[in-house]
Amino acid sequence: MFTTIPGSDLPYHVKTSSKITVVGVGNVGMACAQTCVTEGLVDELALVDIQADKLRGEMLDLQHAAAFLPRVNIMADSDYAVSEGSDICIVTAGARQREGESRLSLLGRNLSLFKSIIPQLVRYSPDTILLIVSNPVDILTYLSWKISGFPPNRVIGTGTNLDSSRLRFLIADKFDVNAHNVHGYMVGEHGDSSVPLWSTLTIANMPVLSICDKDGVKYSRESLQELHKMVVGGAYEVIKLKGYTSWAIGYSTASLVKSLLRDQRRIHPVSVLAKGFYGIDKDVYLSLPSQLGRAGVLGVASVQMIEEERRKLHESSETIWDIQNQLQI
Amino acid sequence: MFTTIPGSDLPYHVKTSSKITVVGVGNVGMACAQTCVTEGLVDELALVDIQADKLRGEMLDLQHAAAFLPRVNIMADSDYAVSEGSDICIVTAGARQREGESRLSLLGRNLSLFKSIIPQLVRYSPDTILLIVSNPVDILTYLSWKISGFPPNRVIGTGTNLDSSRLRFLIADKFDVNAHNVHGYMVGEHGDSSVPLWSTLTIANMPVLSICDKDGVKYSRESLQELHKMVVGGAYEVIKLKGYTSWAIGYSTASLVKSLLRDQRRIHPVSVLAKGFYGIDKDVYLSLPSQLGRAGVLGVASVQMIEEERRKLHESSETIWDIQNQLQI
Amino acid sequence: MFTTIPGSDLPYHVKTSSKITVVGVGNVGMACAQTCVTEGLVDELALVDIQADKLRGEMLDLQHAAAFLPRVNIMADSDYAVSEGSDICIVTAGARQREGESRLSLLGRNLSLFKSIIPQLVRYSPDTILLIVSNPVDILTYLSWKISGFPPNRVIGTGTNLDSSRLRFLIADKFDVNAHNVHGYMVGEHGDSSVPLWSTLTIANMPVLSICDKDGVKYSRESLQELHKMVVGGAYEVIKLKGYTSWAIGYSTASLVKSLLRDQRRIHPVSVLAKGFYGIDKDVYLSLPSQLGRAGVLGVASVQMIEEERRKLHESSETIWDIQNQLQI
Amino acid sequence: MFTTIPGSDLPYHVKTSSKITVVGVGNVGMACAQTCVTEGLVDELALVDIQADKLRGEMLDLQHAAAFLPRVNIMADSDYAVSEGSDICIVTAGARQREGESRLSLLGRNLSLFKSIIPQLVRYSPDTILLIVSNPVDILTYLSWKISGFPPNRVIGTGTNLDSSRLRFLIADKFDVNAHNVHGYMVGEHGDSSVPLWSTLTIANMPVLSICDKDGVKYSRESLQELHKMVVGGAYEVIKLKGYTSWAIGYSTASLVKSLLRDQRRIHPVSVLAKGFYGIDKDVYLSLPSQLGRAGVLGVASVQMIEEERRKLHESSETIWDIQNQLQI
Repeated sequence: MFTTIPGSDLPYHVKTSSKITVVGVGNVGMACAQTCVTEGLVDELALVDIQADKLRGEMLDLQHAAAFLPRVNIMADSDYAVSEGSDICIVTAGARQREGESRLSLLGRNLSLFKSIIPQLVRYSPDTILLIVSNPVDILTYLSWKISGFPPNRVIGTGTNLDSSRLRFLIADKFDVNAHNVHGYMVGEHGDSSVPLWSTLTIANMPVLSICDKDGVKYSRESLQELHKMVVGGAYEVIKLKGYTSWAIGYSTASLVKSLLRDQRRIHPVSVLAKGFYGIDKDVYLSLPSQLGRAGVLGVASVQMIEEERRKLHESSETIWDIQNQLQI
Repeated sequence: MFTTIPGSDLPYHVKTSSKITVVGVGNVGMACAQTCVTEGLVDELALVDIQADKLRGEMLDLQHAAAFLPRVNIMADSDYAVSEGSDICIVTAGARQREGESRLSLLGRNLSLFKSIIPQLVRYSPDTILLIVSNPVDILTYLSWKISGFPPNRVIGTGTNLDSSRLRFLIADKFDVNAHNVHGYMVGEHGDSSVPLWSTLTIANMPVLSICDKDGVKYSRESLQELHKMVVGGAYEVIKLKGYTSWAIGYSTASLVKSLLRDQRRIHPVSVLAKGFYGIDKDVYLSLPSQLGRAGVLGVASVQMIEEERRKLHESSETIWDIQNQLQI
Repeated sequence: MFTTIPGSDLPYHVKTSSKITVVGVGNVGMACAQTCVTEGLVDELALVDIQADKLRGEMLDLQHAAAFLPRVNIMADSDYAVSEGSDICIVTAGARQREGESRLSLLGRNLSLFKSIIPQLVRYSPDTILLIVSNPVDILTYLSWKISGFPPNRVIGTGTNLDSSRLRFLIADKFDVNAHNVHGYMVGEHGDSSVPLWSTLTIANMPVLSICDKDGVKYSRESLQELHKMVVGGAYEVIKLKGYTSWAIGYSTASLVKSLLRDQRRIHPVSVLAKGFYGIDKDVYLSLPSQLGRAGVLGVASVQMIEEERRKLHESSETIWDIQNQLQI
Repeated sequence: MFTTIPGSDLPYHVKTSSKITVVGVGNVGMACAQTCVTEGLVDELALVDIQADKLRGEMLDLQHAAAFLPRVNIMADSDYAVSEGSDICIVTAGARQREGESRLSLLGRNLSLFKSIIPQLVRYSPDTILLIVSNPVDILTYLSWKISGFPPNRVIGTGTNLDSSRLRFLIADKFDVNAHNVHGYMVGEHGDSSVPLWSTLTIANMPVLSICDKDGVKYSRESLQELHKMVVGGAYEVIKLKGYTSWAIGYSTASLVKSLLRDQRRIHPVSVLAKGFYGIDKDVYLSLPSQLGRAGVLGVASVQMIEEERRKLHESSETIWDIQNQLQI
């Protein structure tokens, strides 16, 4: 049907602009993959999982939408060769968090899994960025860094990017503003011991502590603690209600993919190698406000932290360090 | 925090540009809802289901992504009052198609359900468009039309819009072109007895029957039958592999929502009241190429059909009519 | 070619989701119109100008792109009847700012023009929002408010929304971050006497005054004054270099249209009726951080201002008030 | 403000996903550049022109919109070094078509210009795709191919991609459908001697010759000739009315950029090296339906042409060949 023009330098092995691989096609992995596709972030998508049936079913279901989307080359295989040349590899594989289960307790079930996944990704995409979603995300990102041998700018955990969005949604809802006008970060460990940086939380550059919400209520440090509990409880609540979380983590991951692939140099609270920042002196991954671009983590920002916030960060780093020391990496 | 300017005519009850309701928050309903949100089609989204826990979980999971999306007002309730003033009501409620189950056999389990759903939607949104996704879609759309008392332009089934995309994907894959360059419709009954209009199937305006695919193979009427089987089998295969279909029907539904809400006047093969078209003489809903705009179905197109295609349409209409006559509407 | 389904309630006079009118098809007007179309914000676009040839040429040039865009109904006429039922009317008509000309000096040439434009827009779209772009924007927005008889929430000037973007671009460039991570407002009079709210200017919630830029330079109140001069000079420089500004004001206006039409409730520094805010006691329009939604200005935010900033705002209000008093409205 | 994580492999010279250069910042060049930016197609944009003032003005005007757009790195220089590493170089430089001037008569004024432009683009981006917009586009694309020494798949003229959109708009308007449902190509020489392939023109797969428009009028080969005249006259009319064309060619070019950069494998009628296709036996560039992807022209499609259409193509090739032979390349 098509004839190549004589003299063409085809096949022309130019790098296709963007390829991502998603490891794990459960609810989280597919929400990440589908959101990246819908938002037009990728030209090639590779799905990898050990469940061949589920894997093929998810691939076909996405492919069947071809007439409704820009062209994306969607592939799936249990063999990691399908991931070759990926710009970003998103790892969502791992046991799903059970109701009431702490994120840390998931660790044992996920360590050996990562020892089989990461070397394969590195083999086929030695220049890739590893974006870890599986929980407990901070330790698993650390393990991915160690296993991969990658420089730390190219091993990132989604961390508190989602927790921060949950916080911004709650504040936006209480003040009846757009969440995009709420600025503030949650940092530290993803989950129960995350650290909201209240002192920097603003709406349209007004400190939240100085203004009233839509019902005329003013916030205090105490009532903000309630908000923190709601954020931490948010994930547990969704898991309890629907059995898992998917949409929000999918959008969160897609926002990171956009900053990375499109070199946006935006600042996200994501899990990075934290040693040397804010007094942390151990080789641990924790979420800190980081600038993301085509090369991964371009830098970590020096935001204001009060002593209590630093102390909490330090405690998390010690806890994580202790756990890591019990592992046979 | 905000002070209204004196003299403002607030609250100003202007119609918000677009609100949709999705009834049923299973895999299909949520894929429809999430895709509409990601594609920026709606300003307000109402979710309705009888399972209060699941419903709240899905609402929260979408809301938590607020920082990654334009602002959308997301509501959920078991009470249909939440759907008030919807531009489009998407009905996905119904038993999920079981492996090997024919779409028609689902009917018994869905009829009484629709008698409880449709009047509530009509009550709160008398000017809405009903977009039916549940299977068997043709009969359930017919029932929705009868129950609602709406004019037929405002009661539509997603029908073969997805089957057509599956066909276009298969052809695009075999000829290594973009599915957007493959033009052709499957019409008739959604599912096993759908009717591909081969004589009009073209790639970039070249009849598929006249050209060779990427392997140099030319198609005959016989090999096209194989393609039809693959399309029909596609849904069953996905259900068998992953347990249900979701992404493709979500994108398909979002494409219809876009044409309707944004008055696109695009032509889609969707399930419409077919009496009087192509020799069909019964009050049945079947998919025909239809122009969709802000007012629903603006018209049905007069495409070329060969005698055999007309005959198949007629047979489907008779079968459906017989079934409908056995129902107590 | 299409046949209506018998029983349809067509033509169905449902409100099409979004229609905007752009008055004035010069460089600014067309940049506004084209950007709104490219960003998919409108379903109907009406262009109005007194130069019939130019008007028809611009309409045809946009229409010719139909195959590359979602369907938009594009109309143009010298008769304001074409604007009927607009959700937003954008007024860009007016003499172009000449090199070195102060925005205030443009006033005389624009007043009588508005007396012919505004009543026609009000006549055909009594529920519309007036969005004024023409300069001097603060006084012309005030005049539009007086002439229209509209409540103040529905008469808005683009004001310092663009100045603020220029400031954010300069800061982002110096610190090598994404402008979306730079938060801060310029308020007051659009142009030479605009007031940057330095005390609230932050990057990722860090006060700009506390951090170093990419070259290790720290900013002082003095060096920030230089930045202000660059922002104010930015418009003049573009006018000097290319003869007019167009792209940035087009994007700025489209961002406001999005917040208004899609009920985004985002905060923008735009020109609003300022009496009663921040000690301003005259009926003048000045830019203040305002929450915009489907009903126009939902409220004015109470941001922190130091005494000097308040004083400057007050001075601008006095100057504008004096000028307004010399006009025969 | 940011600190690199110790051990990072920064600066990391990974290829940024997409960079385009636009040569010529007149109305056409800027419409191309701005549309590509608005549609989010590029991460880096380089503008080149010999008019330093105008060039800097256009750069600043785009940069000032930073707060309203995803981050794009916008550069401008009279030195072609700024274009280094471009994925696509769009050439719009050249004298503007004067009212009534044939596209061919522009040639003399543009040849020597291209001898200065093309080698510079090749020097800094040896792997780029050259996309020629300047008129007469077919001959200037041929000259760019000869001067560059590139394989023909990487030298493309926008050709009749725009003429085809104009045709589709006219048909869509007459039948009141979405232009996306009108399929058909104009091929051959861009401008007066373009060749509409009537026999393949369809709406929703119905031959236009077989159906009635919204006023009940049926088209004949004669009335279709009128449409062809309207398409050819469309460009002249816009030039007469507003002095130049810009928006439509900007969108047309952006659609090609999308197919190329995102490897869409869509079929566009663009100017390609036509020798060997449809009986053309000279080294000329003419528009033919071509599949575009990341490697440029992947192939030329074998669409049906009647004898008269082939004859016209042949005549155009002879005319162009004669002109080319009179040039000193």
